[in-house]
Amino acid sequence: MSGPQSRLGSVLSHLLGSKHAPEPAASEIASTGSNEATNPVYKHVLTPTSFLERAAAIEPDAEAIVHITANGRTLRRNYAEFADRARGLAWYFAHHGFRRIGILAPNTPAFLETIFASGAAGAVLIPANYRLIAADVAYVFDFADVDIIVADAQFSSLLTEGNECFAASHPNIPILVDSDIDTTEGELRGAFDAAVLEGLRLEAHRPDIEDRSWAGLHAFVAAQPGHKPLDEDDTIAIPFTSGTTAKPKGVEFSHRGAYLAALANVAESGLNGDDNGDDDDKAARCRYLWTLPMFHAVGWTFPWSVCAVRGTHVCLRKIDYPLIWKLLREEGVTHFNAAPTVNTLLCADPQAERLARPVKVTVAASPPTAHLFEQMSKLNLHPVHVYGMTETYGPITRGYILPSWNKLPGHQKFERMARQGHGFLTSMPARVVKTDDDGNAITAKNHKGVTTFVDVPRDGRTIGEIVFQGNICAKGYYKDPAATAKLFDGGVLHSGDLAVMHPDGSVQILDRAKDIIISGGENISSVALESILVEHPDVLEAAVVAVPDSHWGERPKAYLTTKTLKGGDGKPVVIEQQAFLDWVKHQSGISRFMVPREMEVVTELPKTSTGKLQKNVLRQWALKGTPDDVKVAP
Amino acid sequence: MSGPQSRLGSVLSHLLGSKHAPEPAASEIASTGSNEATNPVYKHVLTPTSFLERAAAIEPDAEAIVHITANGRTLRRNYAEFADRARGLAWYFAHHGFRRIGILAPNTPAFLETIFASGAAGAVLIPANYRLIAADVAYVFDFADVDIIVADAQFSSLLTEGNECFAASHPNIPILVDSDIDTTEGELRGAFDAAVLEGLRLEAHRPDIEDRSWAGLHAFVAAQPGHKPLDEDDTIAIPFTSGTTAKPKGVEFSHRGAYLAALANVAESGLNGDDNGDDDDKAARCRYLWTLPMFHAVGWTFPWSVCAVRGTHVCLRKIDYPLIWKLLREEGVTHFNAAPTVNTLLCADPQAERLARPVKVTVAASPPTAHLFEQMSKLNLHPVHVYGMTETYGPITRGYILPSWNKLPGHQKFERMARQGHGFLTSMPARVVKTDDDGNAITAKNHKGVTTFVDVPRDGRTIGEIVFQGNICAKGYYKDPAATAKLFDGGVLHSGDLAVMHPDGSVQILDRAKDIIISGGENISSVALESILVEHPDVLEAAVVAVPDSHWGERPKAYLTTKTLKGGDGKPVVIEQQAFLDWVKHQSGISRFMVPREMEVVTELPKTSTGKLQKNVLRQWALKGTPDDVKVAP
Repeated sequence: MSGPQSRLGSVLSHLLGSKHAPEPAASEIASTGSNEATNPVYKHVLTPTSFLERAAAIEPDAEAIVHITANGRTLRRNYAEFADRARGLAWYFAHHGFRRIGILAPNTPAFLETIFASGAAGAVLIPANYRLIAADVAYVFDFADVDIIVADAQFSSLLTEGNECFAASHPNIPILVDSDIDTTEGELRGAFDAAVLEGLRLEAHRPDIEDRSWAGLHAFVAAQPGHKPLDEDDTIAIPFTSGTTAKPKGVEFSHRGAYLAALANVAESGLNGDDNGDDDDKAARCRYLWTLPMFHAVGWTFPWSVCAVRGTHVCLRKIDYPLIWKLLREEGVTHFNAAPTVNTLLCADPQAERLARPVKVTVAASPPTAHLFEQMSKLNLHPVHVYGMTETYGPITRGYILPSWNKLPGHQKFERMARQGHGFLTSMPARVVKTDDDGNAITAKNHKGVTTFVDVPRDGRTIGEIVFQGNICAKGYYKDPAATAKLFDGGVLHSGDLAVMHPDGSVQILDRAKDIIISGGENISSVALESILVEHPDVLEAAVVAVPDSHWGERPKAYLTTKTLKGGDGKPVVIEQQAFLDWVKHQSGISRFMVPREMEVVTELPKTSTGKLQKNVLRQWALKGTPDDVKVAP
Repeated sequence: MSGPQSRLGSVLSHLLGSKHAPEPAASEIASTGSNEATNPVYKHVLTPTSFLERAAAIEPDAEAIVHITANGRTLRRNYAEFADRARGLAWYFAHHGFRRIGILAPNTPAFLETIFASGAAGAVLIPANYRLIAADVAYVFDFADVDIIVADAQFSSLLTEGNECFAASHPNIPILVDSDIDTTEGELRGAFDAAVLEGLRLEAHRPDIEDRSWAGLHAFVAAQPGHKPLDEDDTIAIPFTSGTTAKPKGVEFSHRGAYLAALANVAESGLNGDDNGDDDDKAARCRYLWTLPMFHAVGWTFPWSVCAVRGTHVCLRKIDYPLIWKLLREEGVTHFNAAPTVNTLLCADPQAERLARPVKVTVAASPPTAHLFEQMSKLNLHPVHVYGMTETYGPITRGYILPSWNKLPGHQKFERMARQGHGFLTSMPARVVKTDDDGNAITAKNHKGVTTFVDVPRDGRTIGEIVFQGNICAKGYYKDPAATAKLFDGGVLHSGDLAVMHPDGSVQILDRAKDIIISGGENISSVALESILVEHPDVLEAAVVAVPDSHWGERPKAYLTTKTLKGGDGKPVVIEQQAFLDWVKHQSGISRFMVPREMEVVTELPKTSTGKLQKNVLRQWALKGTPDDVKVAP
């Protein structure tokens, strides 16, 4: 007999000891899935948790996880092992009655296991950003009412040290620490592994368990006191917004929404390249590199998407550009997701070289530039440009690349690619609706007297707000009805992003409402201006914010990082302000009022942990002066 | 302004005349999709009809349809034109209040347009098999309560001629005849085109229409008297079973089920190969050849799947092997679907030659042989082996090809590929459950006293019935609660197919329950036996049925077609019975009791219009003698 159970025997028998129950009869193993009795035969709840169980059932030997551990060893797990461990953890959660699972970890196998264990145990996952300060981590976990936390050893002190840490105010909430250390001896790697094994022992030994498998787990969960049959609109996870300007907000993901978003990502990012088993380089099985943080919108639902195609998760504890290039070359990576800033620095890394086979790079988080897409394409990194926000499970639009663009002159193909495009496969169409002078969407009555938002004309010029509807919109903000009402005001999800709609129906973001610069009555899109500034041969990154101007009201100020001087010991190129501003004046697409009043070169731009530019920090710098640690002498 | 509206103007203005309304202001065009007011912001109904509207919005110029018309011209339509015509027809249906749309046509553009028009008008589509006799066509349309029929001119006499035809008993139900004739003059092509244009005129001229677009259509449909907001469990189509042994039964497809099946088919058949617009042969945009009849399970949901990826529908009025090879070579076809019998004859066609680029062939309808898959692979036709039935929207399992199979000796890879495999991406797992001696699934009480079906052991030997649950199961049989209750008996969908479950959890069909041969107490799988017989170098096709035997109870009889003699003017090879049976005895996998008692060579095997072998007809032949017109002298 093959399959998960036999593997569990071989992998874990020495840990479980001689009391490990005999393997169940084959007839007991067949999974019945999670169709609860309340559904008719022809319906089952949409939940992405099922993708792991399914992957392990189809191809237990397929490589599921490759990971360089905290002690620098390369760990490899197949789908049988991944599924066994996730199921063990789920038994642990279910047996102890944990229903709200916090996690504080970089992109590790433990994170992936916790995502699936939480779902299978009927619990809600609450991921926290490990780059927050202890008080903010405590706020997230306290606000979301976690009853247990999985924490990576590198970051667990954030939970346990100091007066403001979570443990100080919640001493009774258990913390399962994962050391993420691999040893040849196979000893336990901390409390997390102990919990996994406790769960597997429970499965093996509890006398009330009839079916020692996923089906048995589902039956056990369903039989717990107070358990309600899963509804697909129930919450599966509460990732938090980055909270650059206010307290982070908890965004409620439903099982249905996560399932439909994950399926759309399979198709849109082409994760299902080839699962035909042919040894064919042209369309390889998905090997997905975890550059995107898993805590961010639950890795935009890709933990589920990759399992849906039995792909390999190549985990990564931190962004390390030389290591990424090494993995791209040596681990046959086919896909990764990253913000434009990460891609910019990746392309600028000394290790950068054109890859032998194409890699699809799903790009989101902030508007990318045409320049970046052109650079990436030269390295055989093929951008899939998507746009979204935590409130839309990540991606909800895609810039679909049309064959006719290949005939456009110059950079125009890449300029088109930099547009945010059209609504996603499983989404309703994206709209851009008229706004008032403050950037708030406004409604009007149509001739039947119904109040609706008014779409902007498709002229590529009129600025409005992008709004969404339908299955790829999250359920709202956890325990914040006022913010949810504002988000959904008038029956649409308000993105807060300002955009135009082009004649071809594609959407292009100009700015966050608060980032637009109004100079002498003209709107200046900081995104559009930045995309011009990065065309300068010495500029690496550019960010523009408004500074007060006595004559024009506001004018742009540019913050730049510059490229490394060739043969200059890693020193950045020097750019002189007046020469730079003169160069800007002569670029196409620049109107006089768009030229920045001043520029400043810094060693590093302020960014969130997910790679978004922190314009609020730049505005502080503009008002109070640039901090000494990033200052570059003019 | 580009987009559907401007195209409508240029394409149809001479037909609409000078009264054609001015183009609407751009602000009126933005589609709001079909999110009706009853849904919260974060939900919209799952319906595959939206895929056409979306495709035309993203890429109006993309080639949507290529078709050789009834008068032999090659017609090409882009997505704007396809969507305009479907929307016009939907306006026509909605304006006249048609809610149950019959269709009798081969694989034409009119069929595709009717599928989407019906869905957009909130109607139910009822496709009928054009190879049925007039009385059976009348039965289908009468039983399903159609209130209008779209009919291809080649087959409309089935509706209008003779005493038993549909029109004889339903003189007031309109029939929209489509001539499927293309002329350079662009005149109307019969009542079907007239209805499309009437709908477009309505859209252009009705004073009560505010929004002359898909959004306007949705609003118009929603405002009709008696209209209920669409529920995703509502019926979208009622395709009929082939009804080989009884009256055809109408299978109710829901919007949700069709949507999830269509999405799964995108991923499983890899239709989303590349929509990145690169001129790259390796992963071309989907160009799908319509070998599978559209009336069969609504073309297994592929009309929707292909539009979901903005692929090209290459339509085909009938199976014509030289033409198929021509289209495979000249139209850059990337995908088609066909039954094993069609693939067998395609591989045997004199035009067969290895294709320059791989084509994915989704194979279903009856169990294929390893031999066929090996032949196809040599021609660069890559099988995606799926299994299902009309009651499961077509495909619900797939034989996933594992990399490790490449190391298996001899034909074993292809033998594994011929298994039906595991549950589909959006399905619950397939199960094989124990049956009684008559092949009926049996239940047992578990130790908690709950009555459940009992899964067979995963031994590759124990025969049971394949049963399904979940979203890829149809809602049941239209107006046949008794048959529906039998289909869903005990809370699962009964396939009626007998199978084993292998140790790797994959399902392999042995036979329909009624086709299995019981000889001296041993079960003989006719499918397994046939897969051995076709390995004979002179055999093209093989079908086995039981014949009564005084000693063994039953024994197998083989019906064969043979390959064409090379240089023999198309004459078939002669096979001598005793030599053939001696050959069979020496094949591996043959037990003594499996060897057929007799064999007979025929010119043609009896098949349904969807390519399934008609074993009931063969059993008649075995009892009463082979008809003269297929007899081949022994």
